[in-house]
Amino acid sequence: MSTVLQTRLAAELPAISRALAQAVDSLPASVQPIARHILNAGGKRLRPFLTVLSARLFGYRENDIYPLAATMEMLHAATLLHDDVLDEAVTRRGKPAAHTLFDLVTVILAGDALFSHANRLVAEYGDCRLSACFSEATLRTAVGEIQEITYRRRVDQQPEIYNEIITGKTAWLIRASCEMGALRAKADQRELELTTQYGLQLGMAFQLVDDALDFAPPEKTGKPSCGDVREGKLTPPLLLYREHLAPAERAAFDLRFCSGDLDDAAAQTVGARIRALGFDAQSRRIADTHLEKARVALHGLPDAPERSILEHIIAHVRDREE
Amino acid sequence: MSTVLQTRLAAELPAISRALAQAVDSLPASVQPIARHILNAGGKRLRPFLTVLSARLFGYRENDIYPLAATMEMLHAATLLHDDVLDEAVTRRGKPAAHTLFDLVTVILAGDALFSHANRLVAEYGDCRLSACFSEATLRTAVGEIQEITYRRRVDQQPEIYNEIITGKTAWLIRASCEMGALRAKADQRELELTTQYGLQLGMAFQLVDDALDFAPPEKTGKPSCGDVREGKLTPPLLLYREHLAPAERAAFDLRFCSGDLDDAAAQTVGARIRALGFDAQSRRIADTHLEKARVALHGLPDAPERSILEHIIAHVRDREE
Repeated sequence: MSTVLQTRLAAELPAISRALAQAVDSLPASVQPIARHILNAGGKRLRPFLTVLSARLFGYRENDIYPLAATMEMLHAATLLHDDVLDEAVTRRGKPAAHTLFDLVTVILAGDALFSHANRLVAEYGDCRLSACFSEATLRTAVGEIQEITYRRRVDQQPEIYNEIITGKTAWLIRASCEMGALRAKADQRELELTTQYGLQLGMAFQLVDDALDFAPPEKTGKPSCGDVREGKLTPPLLLYREHLAPAERAAFDLRFCSGDLDDAAAQTVGARIRALGFDAQSRRIADTHLEKARVALHGLPDAPERSILEHIIAHVRDREE
Repeated sequence: MSTVLQTRLAAELPAISRALAQAVDSLPASVQPIARHILNAGGKRLRPFLTVLSARLFGYRENDIYPLAATMEMLHAATLLHDDVLDEAVTRRGKPAAHTLFDLVTVILAGDALFSHANRLVAEYGDCRLSACFSEATLRTAVGEIQEITYRRRVDQQPEIYNEIITGKTAWLIRASCEMGALRAKADQRELELTTQYGLQLGMAFQLVDDALDFAPPEKTGKPSCGDVREGKLTPPLLLYREHLAPAERAAFDLRFCSGDLDDAAAQTVGARIRALGFDAQSRRIADTHLEKARVALHGLPDAPERSILEHIIAHVRDREE
């Protein structure tokens, strides 16, 4: 992360953290520990940071941007909580997943409470466009998650389906995080379109890089690798791998992939091949095309200090190694 | 149910059902069967019916009230889906619970999708007060659910806690169903307050009657009885029962109640005592005090045909036996 980006993030984090802590304090006592657990699991606060930057970019100076920004992290955290249950993930960001520490019931309800409370915080701004943006983001995210599960352990997935899935499960909330800030700052229609375009493309790239990093050696990322192979998610590196196989090999791979029969050893073998053939790097080049679109959109926006920070975020997403 | 109530409900149901079917059709294909399952499980559509009546009461004549009304049933259905998972309920309204027919993952996501889609439908009306009402209802409902779980298998529950729980988990959504209609009809502040008071009190009574009916003999209700004893929910009939016990008996009861050690036979014995001592009937008298408040609020509202229907609903809640 560049110094200029680090400096601005460090400047914004305390107010974002305060807004989040305040929101969590007003949740029912019994779900507060779960909410804190997921919110303190090491997230970079990318989404609320984008909301703050997107408002400041258009000259918005009020501090009420922080609670609004916090709703984006709350929605993200709610999604992670339901995800953890869904994925039966054992760890999340290297820490135990919430539902291995807390009971399933309370985890689901903590997600519902975070979601509902964020929804109400947004409604309190009394601006229908903010509520519409929030509700659209929640719906798109839920639909993306559902689509991802629908297409698990399947090989009939076209690249368009993958794009739809990542648009829903990841990119739309990043888009909404930018839109929220611009809406609050009363940006005009053209500015709104460019800001949301920036957010959408950044979000697509973010997930593409994430899916490439799934094949990085674990000693590099600190996360278990090749999870998507075992979970039956046909992400671009895996799609490229599958396409390069000879027909007989491909049929054998499909059989194991679709039946969930690829254990960790098999997944690591696939991962090593993907790295050797450069399919993870190739996926990052797809991310680059989205980042280029984000950059073009950004350059239509006011030449404020925040625009430079938003450009540093593009580079950060492009270069991240964990 | 009185004939006049039945007739009006029958007149409104087709449009409510169409709005619901249309909403379900726009959900992702993979969660549609779950949404239909829960929506067709025999609900009486009380909530959307209240929304329609509360709008018509103030002279609102547009048909766009039906999709708005449908959002209340969708939110209710979303709650039931997450509830089913939470309660590990095997049946819901005599039919198998969703998560015994569908996998857990899809049930949670179907709840999220119903919830999010309802939220977006409300946002589309472009009236912030509707969005605020919806988000408040979702938050209150989630908090009520959480509180109920927090106080499960505990005997330190004061009557006020019980009131808080049922206000959240049941009454607030019924209140919101009435408020939505009145808001859409642009009722004035006084009318809004009376309408929400009616809804809140009706909702409290609804749950109190439900909790009394839990002790009715199963051959009468068609549902397994005394579930609240087994699940450790200290509802009014059980609270009255516990209070009438001699200290030694009470200590023994507390031990079993709090450890979840009351099996079906023990629960049935408690249920028979509750009926013999009239504690279920006594709980219905508490419901009556709420219904009386609902009636008083109603009489401050316009003397339209819908007011009479809303009064019939009071009688229906009071008298229901299943």
